[in-house]
Amino acid sequence: MSIRILAVDPGYEKLGYAVIDRDANHLVAIDYGLIETPRNEPIHLRLKRIYDELMNIVDLLSPQELALERVYFFRNVSTAIGVGQSRGVALLIAAIRGMKVYEYTPYQVKQSVTGNGRATKSQVQEMVKRLYRLSEAPKSDDVADALAIGWCHGVFARTSEVLNR
Amino acid sequence: MSIRILAVDPGYEKLGYAVIDRDANHLVAIDYGLIETPRNEPIHLRLKRIYDELMNIVDLLSPQELALERVYFFRNVSTAIGVGQSRGVALLIAAIRGMKVYEYTPYQVKQSVTGNGRATKSQVQEMVKRLYRLSEAPKSDDVADALAIGWCHGVFARTSEVLNR
Repeated sequence: MSIRILAVDPGYEKLGYAVIDRDANHLVAIDYGLIETPRNEPIHLRLKRIYDELMNIVDLLSPQELALERVYFFRNVSTAIGVGQSRGVALLIAAIRGMKVYEYTPYQVKQSVTGNGRATKSQVQEMVKRLYRLSEAPKSDDVADALAIGWCHGVFARTSEVLNR
Repeated sequence: MSIRILAVDPGYEKLGYAVIDRDANHLVAIDYGLIETPRNEPIHLRLKRIYDELMNIVDLLSPQELALERVYFFRNVSTAIGVGQSRGVALLIAAIRGMKVYEYTPYQVKQSVTGNGRATKSQVQEMVKRLYRLSEAPKSDDVADALAIGWCHGVFARTSEVLNR
């Protein structure tokens, strides 16, 4: 039996996502992309766009679990608030649709895809291409990160129950 | 004709709110309180509680405008992310229900209720009691702040159109 995972990287006012199927031996990327919102629009309308598009993906593909990165460091408070707002929307959707939520550190995510917890962004992009056998590496960091978070959750969830709260 | 304002202070995993009517000469507090969520519950379920309770207030009282504080400073990144998540839920509700959103600095909020942009929390609590003619000062800082944000918006919106985006 396979489990369907939604992995999300909530960037500032945009959001990378990946939907991944996990069975006993494989992790397969079913869908992935970037939800972008118009820069000239007020933030509450941009959050509603993220909400509508992400809810649409959830209702179309019915993932059972949400995987996110736990973040510790930001350039400034505005960025942290912006990421928090976008994260809040993703978490709300998980709660409304009864999905379980899992969180990993950036170190765990990078280590799971590259073997190195301090890998660069381009190493992560290259490795998600290879691991999921994609025809090309995702151009967006946020999308590559979402695929990497999904991989991390797929690997950890197979070997451990400890994060299953 | 009066305008109904929802003012919100999204604290970390809880939320102070106030619903205020503004006519040509008065600001009247119709309802105010604190939405608290169980500490032992996962954050996505706590955000859903905030969403459900705040949406209920909006659907019951039909405010047309949302007023918030712009925040610049936090003890740490976790707090900023937590406040951002709670803020994201309030902003999403405003977008879903077609409310306009207005933001003020903490300095503007304190100055509008106390005359001093650097007033203490207890000065703000005492002044919102007097300004709204409440029988007692709100015990919660978050509720006092929501009442103060609503007052600030009521005063600014009367004298200026500049924030009406």
